[in-house]
Amino acid sequence: MDQAIKSYGSQEVLSKLQNKDPLFLCVIASTLTSRLPGITGAGASPELTDYTPAADVELIIHGEPQCLPEIPQTLVEGQAAPTPAVITKASIELANIPFLVADAGSAIKPNIPYFNINNKVGKSILTGQAVENPEEIFNKGKILGETLSKFTNHLIIGESTPAGTTTALGVLSAMGYDAWDKVSGSTPENPHDLKRQTVEKGLQAAGLRDKIPTDPFKAVEAVGDPMIPAVAGITAGSKVQVTLAGGTQMTAVCAFLKEAIKDFSFDNVSIATTIFVARDENSDIHYITKQIAPINIFAVDPGFGKSENLGLKNYVKGVVKEGVGAGGAMLAANLKGVSVDKIRIRTEELCKEIF
Amino acid sequence: MDQAIKSYGSQEVLSKLQNKDPLFLCVIASTLTSRLPGITGAGASPELTDYTPAADVELIIHGEPQCLPEIPQTLVEGQAAPTPAVITKASIELANIPFLVADAGSAIKPNIPYFNINNKVGKSILTGQAVENPEEIFNKGKILGETLSKFTNHLIIGESTPAGTTTALGVLSAMGYDAWDKVSGSTPENPHDLKRQTVEKGLQAAGLRDKIPTDPFKAVEAVGDPMIPAVAGITAGSKVQVTLAGGTQMTAVCAFLKEAIKDFSFDNVSIATTIFVARDENSDIHYITKQIAPINIFAVDPGFGKSENLGLKNYVKGVVKEGVGAGGAMLAANLKGVSVDKIRIRTEELCKEIF
Repeated sequence: MDQAIKSYGSQEVLSKLQNKDPLFLCVIASTLTSRLPGITGAGASPELTDYTPAADVELIIHGEPQCLPEIPQTLVEGQAAPTPAVITKASIELANIPFLVADAGSAIKPNIPYFNINNKVGKSILTGQAVENPEEIFNKGKILGETLSKFTNHLIIGESTPAGTTTALGVLSAMGYDAWDKVSGSTPENPHDLKRQTVEKGLQAAGLRDKIPTDPFKAVEAVGDPMIPAVAGITAGSKVQVTLAGGTQMTAVCAFLKEAIKDFSFDNVSIATTIFVARDENSDIHYITKQIAPINIFAVDPGFGKSENLGLKNYVKGVVKEGVGAGGAMLAANLKGVSVDKIRIRTEELCKEIF
Repeated sequence: MDQAIKSYGSQEVLSKLQNKDPLFLCVIASTLTSRLPGITGAGASPELTDYTPAADVELIIHGEPQCLPEIPQTLVEGQAAPTPAVITKASIELANIPFLVADAGSAIKPNIPYFNINNKVGKSILTGQAVENPEEIFNKGKILGETLSKFTNHLIIGESTPAGTTTALGVLSAMGYDAWDKVSGSTPENPHDLKRQTVEKGLQAAGLRDKIPTDPFKAVEAVGDPMIPAVAGITAGSKVQVTLAGGTQMTAVCAFLKEAIKDFSFDNVSIATTIFVARDENSDIHYITKQIAPINIFAVDPGFGKSENLGLKNYVKGVVKEGVGAGGAMLAANLKGVSVDKIRIRTEELCKEIF
């Protein structure tokens, strides 16, 4: 294994992922939670976060976003960092990994062919009525997971869901997991208080504050996002190895699976993320995961400290950290023989071309 | 080769299709042309033709249509025949062929995960403005075809588009092909006069009557349906063998490809249909195809004459004939070693279970 990849948990998992033909699926979704000022950096302004998921996948397929003139960057205190979609693009292109997109309810639809799982954008979780139809989303996800298993023996699922760590916090909290101050975020100063207040108001509005732990579907319906039941459904339907490519948002998917499916086995499910999440001092993916099951976590270090690109260097300072399955894409490319150094160099080249 | 399969053209093509891992994609679309009374049998009433594409693919995935309480049947003078989706379902299930759906603009959306290529339903071709965005549909189709080539080495593309032979006639005529009285239809008494009048009014409304042959995109825009540029795009993007699974509608796709892409080669493209189309006395797929290129046509005889199911027996009388890629699905299953007799028996069983 490349020294850039660290495995938290069993070493057996990695051997199961060797010599596979991976398929990368990116699930995109929105909730109007991302419009709350300060809650996310995934967009140059709260309104522009509506465009981020579509722009991310357009960038991977077309080489540039087509839904908006601006390129998605994370802006924090005037410092810009490129979307992690660039890392994903570099990885899957170098390793020739097929890329598909599923829409679980994005506000703006990408100008590419994509799987429709759900059309409806989530509302703000402040309403306590964030997702209208989590069962339907989960069930369609299951069909998709089963179908995709016919085309691959290693399904990697990434996501682009602005404010997704807040909705993940909502779902985890509603199901009775302790995730306060533990979810990650796209900004160096993780706004834990704002996230907590937002979730608490949502739980209050949904009348769930005294009903914790609540049912997973009710949790998503009240304070979640449509990505969570979609990715959970795809994972549940899959007949092959699944890598959930993301940070603490994917722990909400795992917790959902544990609560929704009796005796769900995580033997064929791992999480892959970046070192920026796995070693983050302002969040704790390991603390959350341990409450669910002994789930293996891979963490990839793209070595952006060595980069001359200031935007990528900002990742080391805690800007962005992860998204669009960047960690899992690097892992998958590495399993196909592409060094992480090569991925970093290609990411730098793409940044020059695109931004 | 099973004696139930007849090949019109080169025998070489069949050898190219041996030992493949096929993938079946069904493209669904609507135009309000199907609301014209008498123009199609693909629905119990003109209004219900809106539901036929979604119901067809739901039947394949869920075992029953979910978008409407009634099961799609073709009703002609009180005689019912089951949708050809049943043949497709029997074939792909017996041969374990993966099944995907792409929406090119269906009026009712199916309750399954499907590829979104285009959302917008086509208008009636009487308006002369049937399809708003054929280039966009074609371009998205190309991306999809390229992507799907990574998962298969034999892409079979079927369609469900009510009144699709009328829109095919429109596109063929606008591009200067002689197809009057030659397109097939889902009823024994093919309403050629109504189809011709409808197309002529559409060409008139579009101001194209004196501008034939016209550009393929303009032809679709005026008097076509969204399935045609979608399937043409997918075929153009494909890097692998393509079988266009359908009757005379697929000749419109071939003609579109010839006109839209300079020096387009049909070496890797065949048409597969049923014997009910290939030997139809009220239409002539061979006459149309010869104007385009020496395209190989496979025709499969499901042997419904022997069936005790009256609905299937009606196929022999010219009801339904083809649709949802039934001919191509049988061919693909047969290439994987499933006899056409076995497909017929399973189709009969499914009819008992479903209807």
